[in-house]
Amino acid sequence: MLPNGQSLPIPPIILAELGNDPKKPTVCFYGHLDVQPARQEDGWLTDPYTLTEVDGKLYGRGATDNKGPVLAWINAVSTFRSLEEDLPVNIKFVIEGMEEAGSVGLEELVRKEKDQFFSSVDYIVISDNLWLSQRKPALTYGTRGNSYFRVEVRCRDQDFHSGTFGGILSEPMADLVALLGSLIDSSGHILIPGIYDQVAPLTEEERKMYEAIDLDLEEYRKSVQVKRFLFDTKEEILMHLWRYPSLSIHGIEGAFDEPGAKTVIPGQVIGKFSIRLVPHMNTSVVEKQVKQHLEYIFSKRNSSNQMAVSMTLGLQPWIANIKDKQYLAAKRAIKTVFGTEPDMIRDGSTIPIARIFQDTIQKSVMMLPLGTVDDGEHSQNEKINRWNYIEGSKLFAAFFLEMAKLHY
Amino acid sequence: MLPNGQSLPIPPIILAELGNDPKKPTVCFYGHLDVQPARQEDGWLTDPYTLTEVDGKLYGRGATDNKGPVLAWINAVSTFRSLEEDLPVNIKFVIEGMEEAGSVGLEELVRKEKDQFFSSVDYIVISDNLWLSQRKPALTYGTRGNSYFRVEVRCRDQDFHSGTFGGILSEPMADLVALLGSLIDSSGHILIPGIYDQVAPLTEEERKMYEAIDLDLEEYRKSVQVKRFLFDTKEEILMHLWRYPSLSIHGIEGAFDEPGAKTVIPGQVIGKFSIRLVPHMNTSVVEKQVKQHLEYIFSKRNSSNQMAVSMTLGLQPWIANIKDKQYLAAKRAIKTVFGTEPDMIRDGSTIPIARIFQDTIQKSVMMLPLGTVDDGEHSQNEKINRWNYIEGSKLFAAFFLEMAKLHY
Repeated sequence: MLPNGQSLPIPPIILAELGNDPKKPTVCFYGHLDVQPARQEDGWLTDPYTLTEVDGKLYGRGATDNKGPVLAWINAVSTFRSLEEDLPVNIKFVIEGMEEAGSVGLEELVRKEKDQFFSSVDYIVISDNLWLSQRKPALTYGTRGNSYFRVEVRCRDQDFHSGTFGGILSEPMADLVALLGSLIDSSGHILIPGIYDQVAPLTEEERKMYEAIDLDLEEYRKSVQVKRFLFDTKEEILMHLWRYPSLSIHGIEGAFDEPGAKTVIPGQVIGKFSIRLVPHMNTSVVEKQVKQHLEYIFSKRNSSNQMAVSMTLGLQPWIANIKDKQYLAAKRAIKTVFGTEPDMIRDGSTIPIARIFQDTIQKSVMMLPLGTVDDGEHSQNEKINRWNYIEGSKLFAAFFLEMAKLHY
Repeated sequence: MLPNGQSLPIPPIILAELGNDPKKPTVCFYGHLDVQPARQEDGWLTDPYTLTEVDGKLYGRGATDNKGPVLAWINAVSTFRSLEEDLPVNIKFVIEGMEEAGSVGLEELVRKEKDQFFSSVDYIVISDNLWLSQRKPALTYGTRGNSYFRVEVRCRDQDFHSGTFGGILSEPMADLVALLGSLIDSSGHILIPGIYDQVAPLTEEERKMYEAIDLDLEEYRKSVQVKRFLFDTKEEILMHLWRYPSLSIHGIEGAFDEPGAKTVIPGQVIGKFSIRLVPHMNTSVVEKQVKQHLEYIFSKRNSSNQMAVSMTLGLQPWIANIKDKQYLAAKRAIKTVFGTEPDMIRDGSTIPIARIFQDTIQKSVMMLPLGTVDDGEHSQNEKINRWNYIEGSKLFAAFFLEMAKLHY
């Protein structure tokens, strides 16, 4: 359904397979062909819809997100056929066209095909995110979830004039600001009781993974134009992006949000905030904790307004077992192609499809990114490096070979 | 200057005078002829620009704000002339056409004409607000001032993605919510140190005036659709609207303010709030107190963001000496015409012109409203009651007579 009321069919999701040898493992690749909008006048230096190479970089909308990786996978598969070699693994593809709009229809299809198309799948590979650096490959084994909340405080439908009513009302904005202010302290610590209870304890093994990651914190800080982060070390920064929850206040609906001055007391306002969830937090537990906390804070104010809290989006975090065979196979393939160990990384954002595959098909899910941190996905002048595209094609082929060796 | 860049001249301010007998007092009447916008499709039951009488009510844009009172004053003056009687007072008029746009150009004119046109003025009468009730006349002797603030918290120009950055930043919204939350408590008490220091102490005489005022609190509460006020008695409500400062948070610019969900960490946000000032608060003192307070709260957070506070509007409160002769004359005139004592009221809003006249011309200023609380100024179906319009014309005439008796 478009904003103008026109209804369009969802583009079909492509399911494909190649080989069904019961002695070989079956690897299912997920990718998407839809892209974010792009117009040359947004600041593109080349036509966003004509792939253009400049200095070894392939510029174009979707180059890295996600057409490049989809093509690299196809390259890897077709190389075996060109060489008239047997494919070492059975291949399945899931290619969708609604990822940038929230993968509408995908979860339904996965559930429906669970015991048909997906019944023979052993491993799922997603190649839809980026390395952490410009040169060192990465393997992604987790993403944060997200619980998005709205908290509404209502006095009456209409606004008030602050001259005529200021001083005698429990003003909804004062209530809302107090509610939002009760969520987090200035060190980034979430103040909702119990919120950290289900966060997985940090193991020594995991701690070492953060140490091994290639990240120049000072360079990163400068590149994102931030004066100072909340933490001083690489390890703390990565852990607070990946393995600890975070809470962000996004804004307020219904208040005065324009430039200039308006002497209004908003009659009803809605605060928006969200919590990024990490293993083993659960959206329904978090929903209950947030509601209880805000109800307690609100009750202490003895306000005459009405408050309503709701979770408008609840997406579980995802984490893989990095001891699964496909992670080992990918590490070996990376070593072969790039001559290095990968950064073992997570993504602070939410990529619901990983968790959906893992929960529904109950098989190992891995993210095997090809692009680099500066590829500019969703941004102007999106690109994939020619080098990453070619080495990435090799990586997928090497991965098939390693996978076949490990799977017995 | 219009939003489209077109520049229009300010409509002329009309200065007029009638009589200059040095033995008579000179009363200067201020009114305005410009109006708020009105379109029939906004919900008007009659053409807003054709005065239409329905059930004793004269409907039309400007009927009560402020054309009706201007005409009533002219009626009063012309009655003496029709009766071929001597006007008991010298009359001056100041009629402007920019009141609804902030009286652009008026202050400059008053200053310029201080020693010319205004040099002989003894009293200034403004008839540009309303009674507190539907039946009981009122005299207005004060208005609150207003200090409007913007507080900006900045990390960087661009916004952040809450997945990619949530957990490692001092988020501007968290800082801003804490700053705004430090301003006022849930009982409406302003928490800025020293803010109440200059508030005039309540005298026994003043307290009695609140008791005498005709206000059915329960009826008022229902009419404005508020579940409960912060205070339970008529006296407390009136005092918190008129003689105590209030602080209202208006909104936030730069954050996510639309319906729906957006996982953004705003890069810079601007909070807007204002304080209604009462005698003997002063905008420059308040500005200093607010800045000191917010700087202290911000420094305690140890945030890496930058904060900037500024007062974008500073309007002083106004209060008259109700023992001035013209207040006594007006009370007597009200007794003559309406057979009752007036409610002695203030206005919680800010009407800068009263203070400007008082400060510049240094003469007594009085507000003598004619319309009733339900006249709907600035709203759809604005009206003035036929009865108020006619009795109001009589009131002005009676006021001239009383004024002449008292002034010697």
